[in-house]
Amino acid sequence: MTPGPIRLSEGAHTALRPATTARITGGFWAARRRTNAEVSIAQGPRRLEEAGNLDNLRVAAGAKRPGFTGDFPFQDSDVHKWLEAASWQLAEEIEGTAGAAGAAEGAHGAHGAHGGELAVQVRRLTELVAAAQDPDGYLQTYYQVRPGAQRWTELHWGHELYCAGHLIQAAVAHHRATRGTELLRVAVRFADHIDATFGPGKPVDTVCGHPEIETALVELYRETGERRYLDLAAYFVDRRGQGTLGDGAEDREADRRPGAPYWQDHTPVRDATEVTGHAVRQLYLLAGAADLAAETGEDRLREALVRLWEDMAATKTYLTGGVGSRHDLEAFGDAYELPPDRAYAETCAAIASIQFCWRMALLTGEARYSDLIERTLYNGFLSGVSLDGDRWLYVNPLHLREGRTGSHGAQGARRTQWFRCACCPPNVMRLLASLPHYMASGDADGLQLHQYASGSYAAGGGAVRVGTGYPWEGRIAVVVDEVPGDGDWTLSLRVPHWADEYGAAVNGEPVAARAEDGWLRLRRRWRPGETVVLDLPPRPRLTRPDPRVDAVRGCVAIERGPLVYCLEQRDQPAGVGLDHLRLDPGTALRDRHRPELLGGVTAITAGALPSRPRPEGWWPYADTGAGAGTGPGTGTPAPAAPVEPVRVTAIPYYAWANREAGAMRVWLPV
Amino acid sequence: MTPGPIRLSEGAHTALRPATTARITGGFWAARRRTNAEVSIAQGPRRLEEAGNLDNLRVAAGAKRPGFTGDFPFQDSDVHKWLEAASWQLAEEIEGTAGAAGAAEGAHGAHGAHGGELAVQVRRLTELVAAAQDPDGYLQTYYQVRPGAQRWTELHWGHELYCAGHLIQAAVAHHRATRGTELLRVAVRFADHIDATFGPGKPVDTVCGHPEIETALVELYRETGERRYLDLAAYFVDRRGQGTLGDGAEDREADRRPGAPYWQDHTPVRDATEVTGHAVRQLYLLAGAADLAAETGEDRLREALVRLWEDMAATKTYLTGGVGSRHDLEAFGDAYELPPDRAYAETCAAIASIQFCWRMALLTGEARYSDLIERTLYNGFLSGVSLDGDRWLYVNPLHLREGRTGSHGAQGARRTQWFRCACCPPNVMRLLASLPHYMASGDADGLQLHQYASGSYAAGGGAVRVGTGYPWEGRIAVVVDEVPGDGDWTLSLRVPHWADEYGAAVNGEPVAARAEDGWLRLRRRWRPGETVVLDLPPRPRLTRPDPRVDAVRGCVAIERGPLVYCLEQRDQPAGVGLDHLRLDPGTALRDRHRPELLGGVTAITAGALPSRPRPEGWWPYADTGAGAGTGPGTGTPAPAAPVEPVRVTAIPYYAWANREAGAMRVWLPV
Repeated sequence: MTPGPIRLSEGAHTALRPATTARITGGFWAARRRTNAEVSIAQGPRRLEEAGNLDNLRVAAGAKRPGFTGDFPFQDSDVHKWLEAASWQLAEEIEGTAGAAGAAEGAHGAHGAHGGELAVQVRRLTELVAAAQDPDGYLQTYYQVRPGAQRWTELHWGHELYCAGHLIQAAVAHHRATRGTELLRVAVRFADHIDATFGPGKPVDTVCGHPEIETALVELYRETGERRYLDLAAYFVDRRGQGTLGDGAEDREADRRPGAPYWQDHTPVRDATEVTGHAVRQLYLLAGAADLAAETGEDRLREALVRLWEDMAATKTYLTGGVGSRHDLEAFGDAYELPPDRAYAETCAAIASIQFCWRMALLTGEARYSDLIERTLYNGFLSGVSLDGDRWLYVNPLHLREGRTGSHGAQGARRTQWFRCACCPPNVMRLLASLPHYMASGDADGLQLHQYASGSYAAGGGAVRVGTGYPWEGRIAVVVDEVPGDGDWTLSLRVPHWADEYGAAVNGEPVAARAEDGWLRLRRRWRPGETVVLDLPPRPRLTRPDPRVDAVRGCVAIERGPLVYCLEQRDQPAGVGLDHLRLDPGTALRDRHRPELLGGVTAITAGALPSRPRPEGWWPYADTGAGAGTGPGTGTPAPAAPVEPVRVTAIPYYAWANREAGAMRVWLPV
Repeated sequence: MTPGPIRLSEGAHTALRPATTARITGGFWAARRRTNAEVSIAQGPRRLEEAGNLDNLRVAAGAKRPGFTGDFPFQDSDVHKWLEAASWQLAEEIEGTAGAAGAAEGAHGAHGAHGGELAVQVRRLTELVAAAQDPDGYLQTYYQVRPGAQRWTELHWGHELYCAGHLIQAAVAHHRATRGTELLRVAVRFADHIDATFGPGKPVDTVCGHPEIETALVELYRETGERRYLDLAAYFVDRRGQGTLGDGAEDREADRRPGAPYWQDHTPVRDATEVTGHAVRQLYLLAGAADLAAETGEDRLREALVRLWEDMAATKTYLTGGVGSRHDLEAFGDAYELPPDRAYAETCAAIASIQFCWRMALLTGEARYSDLIERTLYNGFLSGVSLDGDRWLYVNPLHLREGRTGSHGAQGARRTQWFRCACCPPNVMRLLASLPHYMASGDADGLQLHQYASGSYAAGGGAVRVGTGYPWEGRIAVVVDEVPGDGDWTLSLRVPHWADEYGAAVNGEPVAARAEDGWLRLRRRWRPGETVVLDLPPRPRLTRPDPRVDAVRGCVAIERGPLVYCLEQRDQPAGVGLDHLRLDPGTALRDRHRPELLGGVTAITAGALPSRPRPEGWWPYADTGAGAGTGPGTGTPAPAAPVEPVRVTAIPYYAWANREAGAMRVWLPV
């Protein structure tokens, strides 16, 4: 069994179960995962050392003089998340699968062998974490090393259970990957301390301002079989929404208390009708609640989760899959409030969305959740890390105006090597390191392919190999390696909602069956060695927003397959500014793969009309001349003088901000 | 001479000088100012008592046990701003001009007489402020009453000079209004303490995170004749922009230090090319710099101010005159970043803009500054206070979606009786109380009418009376009461940029002259009793944005005269939702004055097409079907089934949120 997240209990109430083997061996994601292993994860310990996170652990262990380094209570969680990422990576190396992906590039020299450099680093950081733990099991250096700091007194801001959750997730990953119990023992001791502390009639009867412990405790239950961890997760889900966290009146500036919705403490999750507040908090909570529903089978909770997911997907998600419309409080906005320039769309929120979606996919078996995962993965998530794996975006806007580079919030325009608040980088690392587990699932009847990456997947009693040039090419070849018994068995292939034309063949024979609700289900008596070819031709297309998405009215976006495209200034003809451009509505989009560009991307060109800047005046609003009812006033400017059409070049959004800085836009006026 | 702000020194280098007499005696603004006096200002002391501001002063005076009430360091400034407002109001009552405006309504009973209730309250609060002052002149209770607090150690957040500035402005107003020196003595002692503390070679060599002291010190120089206050103002303007305030690393959440641009400490004001950062801070700074330029005549500073004003007006101002596009840090956004839903457009920022504009109007003599004042005054400023003078908006958005009432930030959707951060209410009070001074000016050659309100104005050696039903009606009648000598003299009337049709007559004879650069200059030998009638017909019109204002692409707004209109949900036909509405582009706008509506407003109706909500799906983006270049794909949805046109009703924006809560929008899709 390939170690990975969500190892469901035997009796879990889900439609689908995770794959037992999941390996990505080539193609788009293998390359990104290699960079993740060789650059991002490999340099994690150095970054954590430089940022002071490791020193905090040493101080807590008594090995250094008291004093906390860093600006945030959750500094420890960066270490925990790196340990989780490194553990998944280590699992792959222990299994030897990294050899398949990376041997040719000499990856083994650096970290490929069990006992290699990565294992050494994991041991070293595990020892630092273990040494920092208090005798009673408590572990958060922010409250351990600052004179006078009191644990469990600032639940709304303190992130103590949040850090505990990440510690537990790291420990579970480490245990699954190595069977080593060093980190798991630390996590269990902390979890037991929390269990003794939190609950009705116990010393503390409230929740954490930042959800995360919920999903972690369900995983700890799965890993240890201890039912009380599941009960404790249920307590934290149930207790939330009762206003026990207060309103954060400590917030300094202006008249804005974050308030209960910010940390989802205004309404119990089962009663909530919309996603709200801090996007990462909201989605970690929902992921945890979905884990709980998976283990308890509770209908009411599942229905609430479906309702909240629909609210998110239909009204509060960017074209890139990013979520969180507001810089202010890093929060969800109102329905259809999706400004491209001020999109916060934090990288961590994209990751949280993927985690929530995947749990919903398993819970319900519905393809739409994996549809959204695909979109988020290739766009709003992947934009968070540079092509070289060394620089990061925290904020992922869909529009950056000319001359605005570097001033678009503290992040957003320029990639940074590390952040003071470094939640995103190790979060990207852990998702990429565990990515194979989001590709496939199984049930009693067969195997489902949710995403398309070259590799090997076993689930539902069978096993398949996938080969594909996705997302650049739309052909996916599947070889069935094993099937259970000799009865009918179903191989299900997800047909993305963008694929209005597609075709499939089994052993070279075209398939007449069509996808239903996003699944092309091929049910037959399979024999090992048989093949399926699915074609999802990724033609370039123009996409329009719902008219209620006010911020991008009158615009279209270029897409191709699962990829959202954007224009970057430097790819455009001289003198063609992105602030003064209209897409030619009758344009033919042309795509061409360019191996030399941005690590190899398919670029798309389109016809556009550069508009001349209006004469400068001091007021940017003008009378339309309409309103008297005397003519067909249109509210639009008089037609400008004819301009020479030009061809502009679009690149995949995920690859933006990898060259010198400049203007960028996804949504193009027509 | 009517007491008012900006009493220029004899040698000031401005094109225009403030009016010596300025009284509003009737019409639109007289009614609003009566409410300001009888409700807003009258209940100020009670609000300040309830919020704890007065207790802080008592604690500092030793009359209560130590302890600070309130969340912000600048609580004292609410008291100071109320004292300024009350002083301007008191001046009017001392002059007896309130009698003309309010006698019929019995205003005198409550506060109309010198020595009446208002004077009593001013005396009482002045005594509280004076008693709170430390022996060395220091006065800010936030640093006086909290154990361990150290003055002048947190200049970036502490607001100490900001509070000092408001104290000085209050003292200057009080002195001009009453000739009483009680408050001026307090201000002078504090100013002397600041002068001894701040500067090169003195104990502190930096500026305040929140500008305000600059304009105050220039006024103190004008009031006392002490040149060193002007020099100190110059020091604070010159020292700014050198990064002495640090980057606010204390900011708790996320990776966002406010940074030097937030408090305009990144670039010296003379070198700056754009307005940036916290909008109120930016504009108070520019108002102070304009005061300095007025007194010093420095060209380079004036040129910078013109450049920054143009940047603000042309690229960062809402149709309502509101400024500040970002909730995040209450800041200016990028050029053309003007989202209607997430407009912050703080009431205080509108006031700051008006103060900056008025100083620029005096400095340059150009009409465009007063054009923007008019727009801001009638829209983005006036929306800040309820029709009954008792409830407030802090944030002034231009769009509120259906069902979103009360969740649009902490303020914004609902008017509040007072704020924890109550900067806006007393700021509205002081502007309304001193409003007559923004109406007219004079120079060696004549008198200029900048705004139109019934009243009496003297300037440039002459005096006029104005009668008008503005803004509902466009006729302005001016009687020339006095002229200096018997030579030529110029009466200049501002013709707003919205008035594409206008006419004027002198003594009933049409005038052939046309406005130049916004001024209709009537130069002749005037005799007392002669009249001018200016007609500025306020026809309803549709206004479109610059194509670069991305957030309202494809929309128009309804305007009439200086008023911006909005749709509120409750005025629309049943079943017509503001989220699903397109304005009929060929519509005839119809206006009708409705005395019964919202205190009497001219409402406008327009034809609109309610669009049916799209079928619900889980993804709000759809393929246009274009992009293959095979047809005229437009990127816009296929035409919907024909719908029955309806007529929708628009009200002036300033009057929104005065009935039950509901959706609202200024910009309407076409």
